[in-house]
Amino acid sequence: MSVFAPRGDLLRLSTLFVRTLREDPADAEVASHRLLVRAGYIRRAAPGIYTWLPLGLRVLAKVEAIVREEMDAIGGQEVHFPALLPREPYEATGRWKEYGPNLFRLKDRKEADYLLAPTHEEMFTLLVKDLYSSYKDLPLTLYQIQTKYRDEARPRAGLIRGREFVMKDSYSFDTTDAGLDAAYQRHRDAYERIFRRLGLEYVIVSAMSGAMGGSRSEEFLSPSPIGEDTFVRSAGGYAANVEAVVTPVPDPVPYDDAPAAHVEDTPDTPTIDTLVALANAEHPRPDRAWTAADTLKNVVLAVTRPDGGRDLLVVGVPGDREVDMKRIEAALAPAEAEPAGDADFARHPQLVKGYIGPAVLGPQGVQVTDPETGETRSAIRYLLDPRIVPGTRWITGANEAGRHVFDLVAGRDFAADGTIEAAEVRAGDPAPDGSGPLELARGIEMGHIFQLGRKYAQALGLTVLDENGKQVVVTMGSYGVGVTRALAALAEAHHDDRGLAWPAHVAPAHVHVVATGKGSEVFEAAEDIAQGLVARGVEVVYDDRPKVSPGVKFADAELLGVPLLVVVGRGLADGVVEIRPRAGEARQVAVADAVAAVVADVETLLR
Amino acid sequence: MSVFAPRGDLLRLSTLFVRTLREDPADAEVASHRLLVRAGYIRRAAPGIYTWLPLGLRVLAKVEAIVREEMDAIGGQEVHFPALLPREPYEATGRWKEYGPNLFRLKDRKEADYLLAPTHEEMFTLLVKDLYSSYKDLPLTLYQIQTKYRDEARPRAGLIRGREFVMKDSYSFDTTDAGLDAAYQRHRDAYERIFRRLGLEYVIVSAMSGAMGGSRSEEFLSPSPIGEDTFVRSAGGYAANVEAVVTPVPDPVPYDDAPAAHVEDTPDTPTIDTLVALANAEHPRPDRAWTAADTLKNVVLAVTRPDGGRDLLVVGVPGDREVDMKRIEAALAPAEAEPAGDADFARHPQLVKGYIGPAVLGPQGVQVTDPETGETRSAIRYLLDPRIVPGTRWITGANEAGRHVFDLVAGRDFAADGTIEAAEVRAGDPAPDGSGPLELARGIEMGHIFQLGRKYAQALGLTVLDENGKQVVVTMGSYGVGVTRALAALAEAHHDDRGLAWPAHVAPAHVHVVATGKGSEVFEAAEDIAQGLVARGVEVVYDDRPKVSPGVKFADAELLGVPLLVVVGRGLADGVVEIRPRAGEARQVAVADAVAAVVADVETLLR
Repeated sequence: MSVFAPRGDLLRLSTLFVRTLREDPADAEVASHRLLVRAGYIRRAAPGIYTWLPLGLRVLAKVEAIVREEMDAIGGQEVHFPALLPREPYEATGRWKEYGPNLFRLKDRKEADYLLAPTHEEMFTLLVKDLYSSYKDLPLTLYQIQTKYRDEARPRAGLIRGREFVMKDSYSFDTTDAGLDAAYQRHRDAYERIFRRLGLEYVIVSAMSGAMGGSRSEEFLSPSPIGEDTFVRSAGGYAANVEAVVTPVPDPVPYDDAPAAHVEDTPDTPTIDTLVALANAEHPRPDRAWTAADTLKNVVLAVTRPDGGRDLLVVGVPGDREVDMKRIEAALAPAEAEPAGDADFARHPQLVKGYIGPAVLGPQGVQVTDPETGETRSAIRYLLDPRIVPGTRWITGANEAGRHVFDLVAGRDFAADGTIEAAEVRAGDPAPDGSGPLELARGIEMGHIFQLGRKYAQALGLTVLDENGKQVVVTMGSYGVGVTRALAALAEAHHDDRGLAWPAHVAPAHVHVVATGKGSEVFEAAEDIAQGLVARGVEVVYDDRPKVSPGVKFADAELLGVPLLVVVGRGLADGVVEIRPRAGEARQVAVADAVAAVVADVETLLR
Repeated sequence: MSVFAPRGDLLRLSTLFVRTLREDPADAEVASHRLLVRAGYIRRAAPGIYTWLPLGLRVLAKVEAIVREEMDAIGGQEVHFPALLPREPYEATGRWKEYGPNLFRLKDRKEADYLLAPTHEEMFTLLVKDLYSSYKDLPLTLYQIQTKYRDEARPRAGLIRGREFVMKDSYSFDTTDAGLDAAYQRHRDAYERIFRRLGLEYVIVSAMSGAMGGSRSEEFLSPSPIGEDTFVRSAGGYAANVEAVVTPVPDPVPYDDAPAAHVEDTPDTPTIDTLVALANAEHPRPDRAWTAADTLKNVVLAVTRPDGGRDLLVVGVPGDREVDMKRIEAALAPAEAEPAGDADFARHPQLVKGYIGPAVLGPQGVQVTDPETGETRSAIRYLLDPRIVPGTRWITGANEAGRHVFDLVAGRDFAADGTIEAAEVRAGDPAPDGSGPLELARGIEMGHIFQLGRKYAQALGLTVLDENGKQVVVTMGSYGVGVTRALAALAEAHHDDRGLAWPAHVAPAHVHVVATGKGSEVFEAAEDIAQGLVARGVEVVYDDRPKVSPGVKFADAELLGVPLLVVVGRGLADGVVEIRPRAGEARQVAVADAVAAVVADVETLLR
């Protein structure tokens, strides 16, 4: 079968609705944003909200078509849900609140609550509940390619983190865990094919499920220095989003020979380094020198629950590591955390800034009884990094200004309410599966696959009759591809200083014909070639602008990033035109052979 | 070129995500709504908001493709705007307020105002202003096929009047009036082709521009008894939306011989008929009998301006006609009118309900001075039907309970603040252009084309340099097709008691193959035929459900409305299958010839 349509498109630059810009837009931080705006593919309508111009829309349609084909190939059935949805289903699953300020909420003229959907688990679950009733109806995979909304606190990087964006979201429905595993694997394979066809390098990493709930979850990241996701990988094949990295827990340490804890004056130690220096000078440890890793840093956070309530939480980590707020947020989701403020400290005078120690935290601190449940809990919850195992000895705050406690032994002198993955992951840390040291990199999240399990089906009552006539709760998967974000990732991966450089499968056209010169013979020859290509099914941008200089035309061609440039100009006197790949060596061909040569080149690019 | 794709689709009913319903949905008033839900094409998500299931989405895609092809054919360039837009552009044109409660408004997390766009004139105007600057860039036509929002007071009839719906909206940009005329005509022609290709009967009627502003405007209506628009047409070719009908103004009547006005007691005349009877009995007119058309009915309305202010307005019409609120609303737009309530009457004791006459209205009533402009105007504005010309003689209220005034002569005894098209249009009324008497019918508005002129360009500063280097304001047209509504109109036009009956170009598939019987040979033969058709590019629904009765299968086939049914069943023993058009005569063909025969039938339907 031909790779071409029966007839290609001819886009004339003299009339095409596009204007290229020489200057970068002021708000553009990353190459994809900068170049997509400069090349006239997109235009900002509001923060994180973009208009698609003709060239951008062509690329978007091609990306969507590839996604659609691969979803159809695994038996996905396409449907289309509204973006404007009533509150009730999202109330039933708790997400109306959990999404917090990320959800666009509105009221209709009757004061009923609506939202602009950020994702559609609830609606798909209810739809299947509405139509299906028997195990014989399953397995089922439904998908949509649809516009989604998320009121990001900091929309950034153009299409990478927008507030209105296109997603492919699909959902699988099975009665058994094995069925869910199979549906998950089918999606995983389909996503690999999608990103390969798009021409995007990808890494599959283990991920946290976050507000989605559920168990197994992986992300497809496009490695990129501007990516918002940090991920780790080991030479032995481990790969995970940094939020999902589980710290290997060391064995407990014997502490029979540890001295008793002792409080010491530690004047003029504003930093961990100065504290360690003073410790080694005035209170040396006999077996080895104290290091930053022997200090226990207690960081005070304010945590906002989905119901709006606010609690203090103290997180203890070894002093040689920073806390990683993204890891903490992933661990606490759907609650949100931020560093505690002065008002928080003022309300808790037992917290002496800079000298906070376990003696006033968690089990050692004040205990309160929950008026509703009757359960007792710590007034200030205290969670520790998993490395702080029983027997480890610490220098930490003595809860008095200018004083620290030394040789405080975990498990002997203090305990916590639990552990938390709060410390930064560093290059060289061991992989959790023992597959070697980790290296860190950044990536753009293009896809995310989740085994939701029965959470949504349970909450919304999606059951079917099994073989024995018994009602069983359906198990679900949820799978997303950020379609507009994948387009941005493509631009990040395929550009240079001069402009975009699209892979042929997603380029807005296959060939960019430039007529350079003033004579009508140049335009006639270029027109013939352009028409000849279109008749063969090739999609052509033809720069037919009569009074534009060759320099401007070439600069525009490189900015637009169509994979093959055909230059019709000076060589015409010698009967030749030039074929110049966007990335590659130029060559001359006879005018009469031009169409056939270009068609062959395009076929090669598309196969 | 073949009418077929290289390979068709095969939709197996055993796995297709569809469930037909035997019962009508409780909220469905019209056939399209009832059948599209029962046949599993759409599903309600909220009032006026629908989910598209696989079959519905296939039809929608085909309707969109036809619209897209015809827009491309007139040089339209496709773009795509966000649905979520900032307030400012709509503030600049006054529509943020004018749309009143029909606009979905919301705030983002920073409390900035946003809306869900009901139409995009502002954004297209600003985009062209942003990119273009010279007359050489024009003419230009841009379009999008996009999801729109309108918070209807009474969403009804399924897709006919929804709150989230798909529209094709396009906009033309020209420097000259002649250019706008040409762009308007191109769209008019394109719309005729679109509706012809869709298989929809249409009538083009003159229309009011309403909140859009601008001058020339026409609607494309699909004649249907369930349509919300009433239109008129004459045998001589006049056609207009009833709101746009202009009443021919009669010549003034000489009134030299009219008696002086006289007030009479009119007890027990609660209706116009009883009043006319009393008038003829007790105060006969010498030249002819009084009729209802001689009474002047004054109707009190409360008018809400876009700025929220509320005024009283009295409308005077001949007593033989009702007032038509839709015509009044169109005349007053963007203000909204409703019958005055008791509170309104209480505030204006000079208005004696049932006996309101001109003596207290308009120029005859209290005059007030506008504090801002200093202009004098009537405290109660009074507008008359255009038939009430100088010299006409009336019986009307005397502003006292139980009394009317007789022989009150317009122009001699009273005047008004102006005229208004408020009276109902009736079958038999003369066409404004003299082309004969009007007949009335109802239709579904599927398209609307407007000459906007320079209103939006002026408000938003869209100018270009003309040939002489002078800034000129661009003139615009705005053109819409209700895509989801056209699909509903198709269902209204093409169905019967048993279900839908799609034209082949928009049907979700071309052929519906039904296997009836229990033997595996039936399913094998049906499978072969289905596969044979798909290999030829035909789109096939194949009812392969093993344990479903023939009766249910036939009922489902008729409900789904695919144009050709192929029955593989009892005839197989004799080597034949049956080809049964959804509308038409069934015939038998030999199994071996089935694929070729069906392909030929489909080709005929598609050409």
